[in-house]
Amino acid sequence: MISACICTIGDEILIGQIVDTNSSMIARALQDKGIAVRRMVSFGDDGDAILSNLDKELNDNDIIIVTGGLGPTKDDITRESLRVLSGSRGYKRDAAQEAEIRRILSSRGLDALQINLDQALVPDNCEVIVNHLGTAPIIIVSRDGHRLYSMPGVPYETAGALGDMLSDIDSHFSTEDIYHKTIMTYGIAESALSNLIAPWEDALPEWLHLSYLPDPITGVRLRLSAYGCDHAVAEKVISERLEGLKEILGSYIYSMQDDSLQAVVGRLLKERCETLSAAESCTGGEIAHLLTTVSGSSAYFLGSVTSYAIEVKQKVLAVPAQLINEHGVVSSEVAAAMAEGVRRLTGSTWAVATTGLAEGDDDRNPEGTVWVGISGPNGTFTSRWQYKSSRQINIKRFAATALNELRLRIINY
Amino acid sequence: MISACICTIGDEILIGQIVDTNSSMIARALQDKGIAVRRMVSFGDDGDAILSNLDKELNDNDIIIVTGGLGPTKDDITRESLRVLSGSRGYKRDAAQEAEIRRILSSRGLDALQINLDQALVPDNCEVIVNHLGTAPIIIVSRDGHRLYSMPGVPYETAGALGDMLSDIDSHFSTEDIYHKTIMTYGIAESALSNLIAPWEDALPEWLHLSYLPDPITGVRLRLSAYGCDHAVAEKVISERLEGLKEILGSYIYSMQDDSLQAVVGRLLKERCETLSAAESCTGGEIAHLLTTVSGSSAYFLGSVTSYAIEVKQKVLAVPAQLINEHGVVSSEVAAAMAEGVRRLTGSTWAVATTGLAEGDDDRNPEGTVWVGISGPNGTFTSRWQYKSSRQINIKRFAATALNELRLRIINY
Repeated sequence: MISACICTIGDEILIGQIVDTNSSMIARALQDKGIAVRRMVSFGDDGDAILSNLDKELNDNDIIIVTGGLGPTKDDITRESLRVLSGSRGYKRDAAQEAEIRRILSSRGLDALQINLDQALVPDNCEVIVNHLGTAPIIIVSRDGHRLYSMPGVPYETAGALGDMLSDIDSHFSTEDIYHKTIMTYGIAESALSNLIAPWEDALPEWLHLSYLPDPITGVRLRLSAYGCDHAVAEKVISERLEGLKEILGSYIYSMQDDSLQAVVGRLLKERCETLSAAESCTGGEIAHLLTTVSGSSAYFLGSVTSYAIEVKQKVLAVPAQLINEHGVVSSEVAAAMAEGVRRLTGSTWAVATTGLAEGDDDRNPEGTVWVGISGPNGTFTSRWQYKSSRQINIKRFAATALNELRLRIINY
Repeated sequence: MISACICTIGDEILIGQIVDTNSSMIARALQDKGIAVRRMVSFGDDGDAILSNLDKELNDNDIIIVTGGLGPTKDDITRESLRVLSGSRGYKRDAAQEAEIRRILSSRGLDALQINLDQALVPDNCEVIVNHLGTAPIIIVSRDGHRLYSMPGVPYETAGALGDMLSDIDSHFSTEDIYHKTIMTYGIAESALSNLIAPWEDALPEWLHLSYLPDPITGVRLRLSAYGCDHAVAEKVISERLEGLKEILGSYIYSMQDDSLQAVVGRLLKERCETLSAAESCTGGEIAHLLTTVSGSSAYFLGSVTSYAIEVKQKVLAVPAQLINEHGVVSSEVAAAMAEGVRRLTGSTWAVATTGLAEGDDDRNPEGTVWVGISGPNGTFTSRWQYKSSRQINIKRFAATALNELRLRIINY
């Protein structure tokens, strides 16, 4: 199996100032090609560290993908390390990238400065893939049949150059078979899930590996992996086994592929030509935000009201003041009235509402309480949930719970 | 300087299914203690890989923090590697963690299963820090004065155990001085920024290192780092130099600390006892979501309307149909009317509105166009922006741009 190592260069990663999202994006792409990522390594903007780490990984792996350390400013020293690694004497100017630099800057209404143009300088012995989204080219070091790709660290540039890099990999390596299948569950804890499916899991063939990937927000992901066997065979056997799993888990499963609750809710609504609106208090726009990250969501998501202030609840959503006085803002009654209010306001088929305490408590409810209201063609339903995380995680769990409750109401309608 | 390596274990990271956020959280905490994180390494759930990687890092670094690979399910083999690393013959049951497992499960209304209780098993020679948020304890391997901390991989458990781990580090290592200062800018590209401040940068003392951390959403972060010098001296010199930087950059700077636009806007509003509402079309709740991630935001953020559907724009925000017909939904006029509409509806001091195209185009505007409307005590202002990213990144850039426009209007009022 072809092995790969993904390296990220940058002090900003080592001091925790930014989270590295490039590596997982690259890993998914390699994974889909059946290339085994053995390691991911991050190290600092330091010439010696860069050279020694890259040299080691270039010995140990067939493919090395490097991000970061390429930019117009003074702290960039990666290129010099690539010169040494590739045994180049000096630098050459890559005409295609230089033209691209001029084009990009001119499309932004900027002049090409010398500092920009010099990004087209690459070590003599290196190959180049042109970066069409940014000024720094992708530089390739080839050594003993192993290939190192040095990519810019800005995530959208990395993403944009990925396709060209994968084509280059295709033309230099022949990849093996690997097959993964992911199942998404929500509303059941990892250990309970593990107990529930133990007999099913024990009966799996040896070449199938099951992993549990728990997450408080997406729920527990299950992943079945088949290594080194025929794609079609793996697909067939896994698909048979999953029928058994579906029987055991029922509606705990929200998708038979790597998915999000908002995408699943969106597909359900689209299939049924139904629409949705949201009234958010404690989740403060998170539900609307999640729904609208899905491409094509304007077909079913009409809009939402974030009613942080009580006056907005009363005035925009028409929640009766008496209801709030009697039961408190965080109550089943207010959750129901908010859902009904926004459904009336927008004329949507379904409405989801949240009222709760992501942080702090009130007279009646502890921190982490949320009431979810779902209003639909068959009435209004509310449910109460209790979490114990930080403000930000509570908000995310409230939103995920609300989306899952909505999903359950839709599929049971 | 004390050196550290942060390791993450898990196939799910190597195949790109989850993004590792633990490492940056841990890195920030170590950073604040003046501990230098030299490397971050991720490898798979494989006994040999775990043992050889941890053994190497335990030789090379003073402190090794490991996350992942500790959970109740069958794919966890980290513990056995820790037994070998620590030279333990077998396992002992940690009474404190076992009691905690019972307490945690009972507080969730669950019985403690044997699979849960067995998480209190730790290698004979290892020390333990009790995990109060989850069932797997923090296991410590001590070797030749170096210490390895094996922590659970669930981020909120990692975060919860961080304090106890840092205390243990304090009692075993004496840390050195390191000083960082971060400045946040928005609205100026990295290369232009670099040119603009080149004379200032060239005049910095040698022991001060400047880094550029560009990000399309937060803007370019500048970081000044002082290594191995007295904290007070570093603070004084940096603070003097920053006065010069402020004069050059003016309102491009939105904060003199590691910060977010929404936090800065929040502080401005709080200081002035002013309030805010939002009307979002293309940003679909992202602005409300960002604003409400800030603790205490209910003091100034009244609420928002996400008007994905044209009917919601008309009905809830009272945007005249004629305006939409004449100028199109994505127009200066509609952005202004939305901002004014939600300001009227909520009675807020300020309102921010967005209307644009995160994906696709219309007759008049290309993909990536956004109109931002800001309505406040001194009138309504609109501005047009053009981005060229993916749907999700466009949404984030639109929201950041809107928050920055709002900030500029507030500070110039």
